[in-house]
Amino acid sequence: MPQSMPSKGERTREMILARTAPLFNTVGWGKLSLSEIMAATGLEKGGIYNHFKNREELMVAAFDHAVGIMRARFERALNGRGHAVDQLRAVLAVWAESPLDTPVGGGCPILNAAIEADDADPQLRARARQAMDELLRLLRLILLRGKRRGEVRPQVDEIALASLAISTLEGALMLSRLYGSNTYMQTAIAHLEAHLEAAVRAPA
Amino acid sequence: MPQSMPSKGERTREMILARTAPLFNTVGWGKLSLSEIMAATGLEKGGIYNHFKNREELMVAAFDHAVGIMRARFERALNGRGHAVDQLRAVLAVWAESPLDTPVGGGCPILNAAIEADDADPQLRARARQAMDELLRLLRLILLRGKRRGEVRPQVDEIALASLAISTLEGALMLSRLYGSNTYMQTAIAHLEAHLEAAVRAPA
Repeated sequence: MPQSMPSKGERTREMILARTAPLFNTVGWGKLSLSEIMAATGLEKGGIYNHFKNREELMVAAFDHAVGIMRARFERALNGRGHAVDQLRAVLAVWAESPLDTPVGGGCPILNAAIEADDADPQLRARARQAMDELLRLLRLILLRGKRRGEVRPQVDEIALASLAISTLEGALMLSRLYGSNTYMQTAIAHLEAHLEAAVRAPA
Repeated sequence: MPQSMPSKGERTREMILARTAPLFNTVGWGKLSLSEIMAATGLEKGGIYNHFKNREELMVAAFDHAVGIMRARFERALNGRGHAVDQLRAVLAVWAESPLDTPVGGGCPILNAAIEADDADPQLRARARQAMDELLRLLRLILLRGKRRGEVRPQVDEIALASLAISTLEGALMLSRLYGSNTYMQTAIAHLEAHLEAAVRAPA
C-alpha cells in the first residue's frame, strides 16, 4: 500500500480537526463544548477520545491544524516572488484578502488564541507564541535575505519592522471584524505599503 | 442627604462591578461563571440578581464600568495638553505605560470583547463597537481641532490616521501580552510618534 494512503483512523482524525478547528476559532478555544464537538463531527464522546487523549489534546491539535492552513496560505502567496519587498507585500495581501472571511473561519487563530489565553490558559498561550514566533521569523528572514541581496536598505531594523507589521495587521483585522468592514484593513495595508516603498526598499 | 451620597444598594452595585470587571476581562466576557462571580463578590446568587436582571445585564454593566476606567485614564492623560500632536502622544502614552499591567486587569476590554464577540455574542459586540466608536472619535476630534488651529497638516486624513493608530496599538498590546514583554508596544509607539512628527505636525 502506498505510504501516502491514510488509514481510516487517520482520515477520521483529519475530519475531526478539519471540522473543529474553525469552530474552536469562532466559539473560543477554551469555550467550545464537548457536545458542540460531537455535533460538528457526528461522533460520540468515545469516537472522539479514540483519537485524542482529552479535550486539551484535541484543542492543541486543532490549533496546529488551523496554523497549518495559515502557513500554506503564506507559502502560496510567496511562491515565485523574487524581490524581498514584493514578498512582504504578498504577505500583507494575505491579510488584505479576507478580513471578513478568513482562511480559518472566525479570524486569525493566533490573534484569537493570544487574546483568549494571555492570562487564562498557559498551554494555549505557549502554542500561540510558537505560531507567532514562526510568523515573525518569516518576516525577519525575508528582510534579512533582502538586505544581503541589496533589495532592502541596510539600516532597516528587521526585528522592529516584523513586530510593527504584525501589530498593525492584527489590530486592523480586529477592527475590520468588529465593524464588518474591510476599510480598517485597507487603511493599515496602505500605510504599511507606503512605509515599505519609502523606507525599506533600497533605491535601484 | 446630599445627592452624592450613594445608598447601600448603589454601593453594593458598584462593588460588584469593580470586582467583576477585571475578572470578566481576564477570564473572558462570555466565559466567567456565576460561581466565580459569587466567589469574587462574596454574594449569593440572589444578592447579585437583586442588582442585575441576569448574567448578560451584569456583563454589559461590567463592560461599561471597564470602559469608564479607560475613559478616565484618557481624560487624565489629555488634561492640560495644548497642541494636537502632543495630545495624540499623550493618548499613545496610555498604551505605552502598562501593556502588562493594564488599567483594567486582563488587557484592553474593548480589544478582548471585540475578539471574543466578533462572531459569538451580538450584544457584547454592539457594546464593544460603541466603546471603539468613542475611542476613534476622540482621536479624530483631536486631529480635526488641530487642523483648525493650524497644528496639524491640512492633508492629514483624520479617519485613516485614527484607524491606523488604534490598529497598531491594539495589535502591539496583543503581542506584548502574548510574550510578556513591553518591546512590541515600544516599537509600535516609536513608529507612530515618528509618523506624527514627520507627517502630521504642521511645520512651525
